Amino acid sequence: MAEMKALQRLEEIDREIVLVSHISGVLEWDQEAVPPMGTEERSRQQGWLERKLHDLVASDEMGMILATLGADDSHVDGAPSLDDRSKALVRLRYASWNRERKLEADFVQKFAETTGKAHHLWANARKADDFSLYQPILSEIVTLVREKAQRYGYVESPYDPLLDRFEPGTTTKDVSEVFGVMKADLQALIDELKGRPLADDSFLYLKYPEDKQALFGKEVLTAMGFDFNRGTTGISTHPFTTSIGSDDIRLTTRYTEPSITSPLFGTIHEGGHALYELGASNTVTRGTSLAGGTSLAMHESQSRLWENILGRSRPFWNRFFPRLKELFPVQLEGVDIDRFLAAINRVEPSFIRMDADEVTYGLHIILRFELECALLAGSLEVKDLPQAWNDAMVRLLGVRPKSAREGVLQDVHWSMGELGYFPTYALGNLYGAQINQTMRSQIDVDALLESGRLVEITHWLDANIYRHGSIYRPKQLLENVTGKPLDPRWFSKYLSAKYL
Amino acid sequence: MAEMKALQRLEEIDREIVLVSHISGVLEWDQEAVPPMGTEERSRQQGWLERKLHDLVASDEMGMILATLGADDSHVDGAPSLDDRSKALVRLRYASWNRERKLEADFVQKFAETTGKAHHLWANARKADDFSLYQPILSEIVTLVREKAQRYGYVESPYDPLLDRFEPGTTTKDVSEVFGVMKADLQALIDELKGRPLADDSFLYLKYPEDKQALFGKEVLTAMGFDFNRGTTGISTHPFTTSIGSDDIRLTTRYTEPSITSPLFGTIHEGGHALYELGASNTVTRGTSLAGGTSLAMHESQSRLWENILGRSRPFWNRFFPRLKELFPVQLEGVDIDRFLAAINRVEPSFIRMDADEVTYGLHIILRFELECALLAGSLEVKDLPQAWNDAMVRLLGVRPKSAREGVLQDVHWSMGELGYFPTYALGNLYGAQINQTMRSQIDVDALLESGRLVEITHWLDANIYRHGSIYRPKQLLENVTGKPLDPRWFSKYLSAKYL
Repeated sequence: MAEMKALQRLEEIDREIVLVSHISGVLEWDQEAVPPMGTEERSRQQGWLERKLHDLVASDEMGMILATLGADDSHVDGAPSLDDRSKALVRLRYASWNRERKLEADFVQKFAETTGKAHHLWANARKADDFSLYQPILSEIVTLVREKAQRYGYVESPYDPLLDRFEPGTTTKDVSEVFGVMKADLQALIDELKGRPLADDSFLYLKYPEDKQALFGKEVLTAMGFDFNRGTTGISTHPFTTSIGSDDIRLTTRYTEPSITSPLFGTIHEGGHALYELGASNTVTRGTSLAGGTSLAMHESQSRLWENILGRSRPFWNRFFPRLKELFPVQLEGVDIDRFLAAINRVEPSFIRMDADEVTYGLHIILRFELECALLAGSLEVKDLPQAWNDAMVRLLGVRPKSAREGVLQDVHWSMGELGYFPTYALGNLYGAQINQTMRSQIDVDALLESGRLVEITHWLDANIYRHGSIYRPKQLLENVTGKPLDPRWFSKYLSAKYL
Repeated sequence: MAEMKALQRLEEIDREIVLVSHISGVLEWDQEAVPPMGTEERSRQQGWLERKLHDLVASDEMGMILATLGADDSHVDGAPSLDDRSKALVRLRYASWNRERKLEADFVQKFAETTGKAHHLWANARKADDFSLYQPILSEIVTLVREKAQRYGYVESPYDPLLDRFEPGTTTKDVSEVFGVMKADLQALIDELKGRPLADDSFLYLKYPEDKQALFGKEVLTAMGFDFNRGTTGISTHPFTTSIGSDDIRLTTRYTEPSITSPLFGTIHEGGHALYELGASNTVTRGTSLAGGTSLAMHESQSRLWENILGRSRPFWNRFFPRLKELFPVQLEGVDIDRFLAAINRVEPSFIRMDADEVTYGLHIILRFELECALLAGSLEVKDLPQAWNDAMVRLLGVRPKSAREGVLQDVHWSMGELGYFPTYALGNLYGAQINQTMRSQIDVDALLESGRLVEITHWLDANIYRHGSIYRPKQLLENVTGKPLDPRWFSKYLSAKYL
């Protein structure tokens, strides 16, 4: 009876936590509309919300509820008698409670305020191509992140507790091993491709009017099954997807004229995230912490599956290329589907992660993983970051950025204090390739793409991934769906089959 | 010493109240982006924020602080020893405390949730031109507003406590008397104008491309002194101005193609509100409740001064008409400034308050005032509102709306539960005319308009009105500036001089 009551109250508090997170999401969505002088106060607003969240997540009452439900460090799911949904709720709340108890409210607020200010400074530095405008706040952030890792505690690496927030159950050592395999495979593949002539992709970098790009983007999203009654789209400097409500899932596109690739594949990518969020918010989960992807890597597996494995495939474009030509007859004059596919799948080491092809992409992530580990360990200082970045680019990809904008200033993540986040992007590729392999053994994906029945792919993903929300851990979900643990070779096999 | 400490804590809580209101303002700003299925949850989010506000505004601690500072029903400004700024803070917080103590948290939340849901229903009903889609929720709202008036308490009219929220110190009887004078004056003027031929204004209702309208709007706002480092502009169904931060003041424009008048004068109108908000948030007041207009009518006096008295004057257009013609050469072909001025100052009884000329406008307000009083008194039911509306239109303005969209569905206010609000629009005209008369005795307004030095007008208004924020009560501020109490005849004199 005490258990029933505790469970009820846990759900009640969890729903309030989600509600406050959604409010914070509205402020995040609005971030780019804030006028220059308003940014500092906006950080204070986010800081206030963070504080309310902290109070809910880490309260003594929460501790008592979790204890009543049998949760402790050796039973993070709570009592064995609980059903799967309740176990998941206990697991998520216990992890947050445990983590937040280690941070004081003042620290949380300081962190939120600092990162809130940093966004604008980062955007300005990027615009001015001047790292020195960003360096002071980034140093503050790295110091705070180090402090955070100390407060969380760790056995092997200060990077462990940061990574665990985004990819529960995965350690720095796991990532190093998996990335070791991936690095070797990618570099071997890049070597093999080196002799080949580069496909002409100049027609992708013409002026494509934004309104028609937006129209095409919406058509593709609609075909994918994005429900505009439950979500909407916007424009931002760095594309993202956010849940502002159980039925208010939003994604943004970054327009980077003259070019169509980044907006187009960015939209499909965010569409993949958005479909996961829409599916994860259902009658079982809605309004609770369970109504979201089970981890960042699993989330990224879904966006990258749509963006690359499906969205850059011939069957996909057999369906959509005629429409694209119809909208952009001048830009695509004389371009047939073969030239188009060669262009959108061109492999070439380059500077910008967001625009990197699916082969070289993983090396961009390895670079960030290495630098983050060094920053945390204290073996690299923020002031030396631009140099370290450029050196690593040469070592991993064989190219040296000509400017900070092309290098160390390109990503928003560090301004948000999110060290430990980047590895999930590459893990996502690995999960996605493995899920893709299973999906293709069950449904005829290519035929569905060719005939425009993309929603049937969405339905398969929904039944196998989306609808489970955060009920299962990422590793367990991957095994449930594919029948085997993570194997980085599936991704290499997918790439080899496609490119060799 | 206890007083010092109480004052410090009062300011601290007040700043938190303002911060939470700003967060709520972000959600309001975002309202029109919410997808259809997300609106209900958005109301819950606003309800949560309202509840936090209520807890801050009406806490026992607040009661003790106010008592320590000497505030009670016969000393609403607190102890006589306090300085003006502290007195104003005590007055504002005491009024809110007193009012909110009379509402229970559950009632506040229910009110917020109901009105939150109503926005969307109103917008849909308006779109579908079908009052029945709006009637059920509006009935709920009227019942809640009646309950609110009961809870606040009143001596003469249930309308009194509602009005007092928006125009402190003004009673229903005051409004009736002032409106009595205004009604007679306006109807007399309209009678006199009746024989005259109507100016041709057809060229105002051509297709004016939105992007060029936005450009012109920004040029005018910039000339007026609107600071885009401290604010921004947007688009919405119903134009409004909101403070989302001390340095984040936003105004919206409603585009109503084919037409330029409503977007253009709507922008100047909201620009007037925004200048007041910008000026009211200064080193003395920023981040506190004092950083805003002292009342809705005073606010409206500033928007209408800019929109009508300045914005529809010949000197204003001597400055701006050449640029308007440059942007819209086709639409304004063959139109000279005389024809343009005649068109934008055309007086004709019409259906839509927002598009009404400055002469007939007051009668639209009298109509709403009468209907609101009747709804509250219970002598009119919501179901009979469309009929009552149309009958009043015939009685006051001599025209009968052909649809609900042209009639009872045109305004957003009731969906927000804001009965008692409308009278402030007309009071604003009266304040504005009186302030205008004083301003012209001190600076050469027409010369400043002609030469584009609009910011000098803004500086005068800032020094006399804006910068005082809410430190003085509206009646006192009006007397400080103009040297006399409110006299509705100044408005009639202004109109007669302009139109006869």
